[in-house]
Amino acid sequence: MGLKQADHARLKNFLDGIKAKTDNFLGYPVSKDFDYKDLFEFLKYPLNNLGDPFTPSTWKVDTREFEREVITFMARLFRAKEDDYWGYVTNGGSEGNLYGLYLARELYPKGIVYYSQDTHYSVSKNLHLLNLRHIMIRSQPNGEIDYEDLHETIKINRDKPAIIFANIGTTMTEAKDDLLKINALLDQLVICDRYIHSDAALCGGLAPFITPRAAFDFKDGCDSISVSGHKSFGSPIPCGILVARKQNVARIARSIAYIGSLDTTITGSRNGVTPLFLWYMIKKLGMEGLKKRVVSALEMAEYTETSLQQAGVDAWRNPNAITIVFPEVAEAVKEKWQLATADGKTHLICMPNVRKDQIDQFLGDLKKVM
Amino acid sequence: MGLKQADHARLKNFLDGIKAKTDNFLGYPVSKDFDYKDLFEFLKYPLNNLGDPFTPSTWKVDTREFEREVITFMARLFRAKEDDYWGYVTNGGSEGNLYGLYLARELYPKGIVYYSQDTHYSVSKNLHLLNLRHIMIRSQPNGEIDYEDLHETIKINRDKPAIIFANIGTTMTEAKDDLLKINALLDQLVICDRYIHSDAALCGGLAPFITPRAAFDFKDGCDSISVSGHKSFGSPIPCGILVARKQNVARIARSIAYIGSLDTTITGSRNGVTPLFLWYMIKKLGMEGLKKRVVSALEMAEYTETSLQQAGVDAWRNPNAITIVFPEVAEAVKEKWQLATADGKTHLICMPNVRKDQIDQFLGDLKKVM
Repeated sequence: MGLKQADHARLKNFLDGIKAKTDNFLGYPVSKDFDYKDLFEFLKYPLNNLGDPFTPSTWKVDTREFEREVITFMARLFRAKEDDYWGYVTNGGSEGNLYGLYLARELYPKGIVYYSQDTHYSVSKNLHLLNLRHIMIRSQPNGEIDYEDLHETIKINRDKPAIIFANIGTTMTEAKDDLLKINALLDQLVICDRYIHSDAALCGGLAPFITPRAAFDFKDGCDSISVSGHKSFGSPIPCGILVARKQNVARIARSIAYIGSLDTTITGSRNGVTPLFLWYMIKKLGMEGLKKRVVSALEMAEYTETSLQQAGVDAWRNPNAITIVFPEVAEAVKEKWQLATADGKTHLICMPNVRKDQIDQFLGDLKKVM
Repeated sequence: MGLKQADHARLKNFLDGIKAKTDNFLGYPVSKDFDYKDLFEFLKYPLNNLGDPFTPSTWKVDTREFEREVITFMARLFRAKEDDYWGYVTNGGSEGNLYGLYLARELYPKGIVYYSQDTHYSVSKNLHLLNLRHIMIRSQPNGEIDYEDLHETIKINRDKPAIIFANIGTTMTEAKDDLLKINALLDQLVICDRYIHSDAALCGGLAPFITPRAAFDFKDGCDSISVSGHKSFGSPIPCGILVARKQNVARIARSIAYIGSLDTTITGSRNGVTPLFLWYMIKKLGMEGLKKRVVSALEMAEYTETSLQQAGVDAWRNPNAITIVFPEVAEAVKEKWQLATADGKTHLICMPNVRKDQIDQFLGDLKKVM
């Protein structure tokens, strides 16, 4: 019993390939400038953050104390009230969105979910899974929700609670729905039974460090936020952070208690390594380090947009976005730089790790086929 | 920017604590005899097994080729037909159960789920999440489903498709529901619209190596199986393997396609490290090594059961189980060995890593308070 030489060789080759492929992508909102090797030793133990991070457990091989610190950091970043937040580290942005919608359904079983047509496809899957009534709203050309369509649609459904699924950075154009505008139109229609979930997968780690600050968080009136851990922050394992208003979670905790469980999370066994990664990242970078990364990403985005325009490419980006959108490019360029394309638009995302020499190389490749 | 000395010291202390706590648990079905340090290098890259492991993707920083090999290995272990399996590596047994039930609901939206009262609490959560109609069935004293109650209950619901959630190793007593008996009673009631999901969280990694072989897999008539990766196999990160009949997944793929996605998994971004761990474990141990671990665990279970009985403790276990059940023990003993207790019963699980000296020490602790 032991790994064969051929398997070892295969792994080594594969690792080299992964390294090269990591260097070469510009099209996915994933950071690569992380370094968690100080924590690898923990992977020798069966870590498991079983159940709710805020509930005691007989199982002790966990990192829940670090997880709680991560949640507190994020809750403050998203301006939650000090005594009204709860959360956990999820397996990715999708799980946080599922949780937010689940919470909304428990509070308003007869609610209708409104979400823009630029919403990530996983949300439709979640709505289907949860059997939630939903209406898709038109998007504006920049990817932001069409507030007029939203207003008109809610207006003819004023007898039903409104559940808003807001995009804080759409997948293709990084458009942000404005919570102040959404709350204003709900106020105008006197919709008291409302729930707003912010899908801040990418921008949850960017928006708090950008002025003017986008209207997306608890102070702006949301009830829950989901942010990815492997996007703007960086992690070798997909993860996310879900923060929700504690008073809402407490209300649904009752409906879970009747099934004999105090576990308010969706999964049971939970990853104990990713909360440690996130904690380490927060401690290492601090608010200052996090801000610095965002500033440099924005500078690179501006450089990329300008360079593309100067090369005659019809490139654009949303205000303060790190995503640059342009007409679909040649297959070879898409393939080499792993660029996602939809509806004739290709995008490039200037994550904090993207270097100027990479952008220049990409521009060179593009010019060759123009 | 950099980690403070105090934070480094805290991590070091914490690691020592985790090591000690790992050594000292006997009450959870989690293996600790794994060693994946050869793979730690992969954690320097943003691995992400985005979407369906069997569908091509523009994103390349993944380990999906290893994941497919893991699925194939498991499908064969569970005697699936060579051309009729599909699956993916999940974040744990719960997600696999949710997927199995989701698949069942898509195939039989009007179906009723039958499951025993000894079923893990997370299943009730899943049923609630999926809005699935369900009836809980009595358990026999050993934790196995009461086939008579199951028969009587289905008999008065013969107009509805039957979805059976079978436990292949219950949480408390490691009881296994018998798929041959279940299929026989469904045949007798001529229920053609049926779906059977096997929750083999713990026993999926044990039962294939034990003679007589329990009736739990595809050859015995199940439609999907969920098994944990961190239980009988061993992983520092909770994970699981879901294997389902390909033809069923293909049928629901249509209903997912209409929402514009070919991604048949529940999450979007997926862990790329755990498939690599599982692949490594399979290659390293092979069928022979896996069997050896199970045999030694069974020997230790027999030793523990006999020793407890000789000490005057009313201990018992199900046939070929590695879980020993006995009346609730003193708080100090439960706390020290992290033993779970429910309904006045405590259990101890002889995972492959449990050593004789630990059992002897535990027996010594127990005798002191008896």
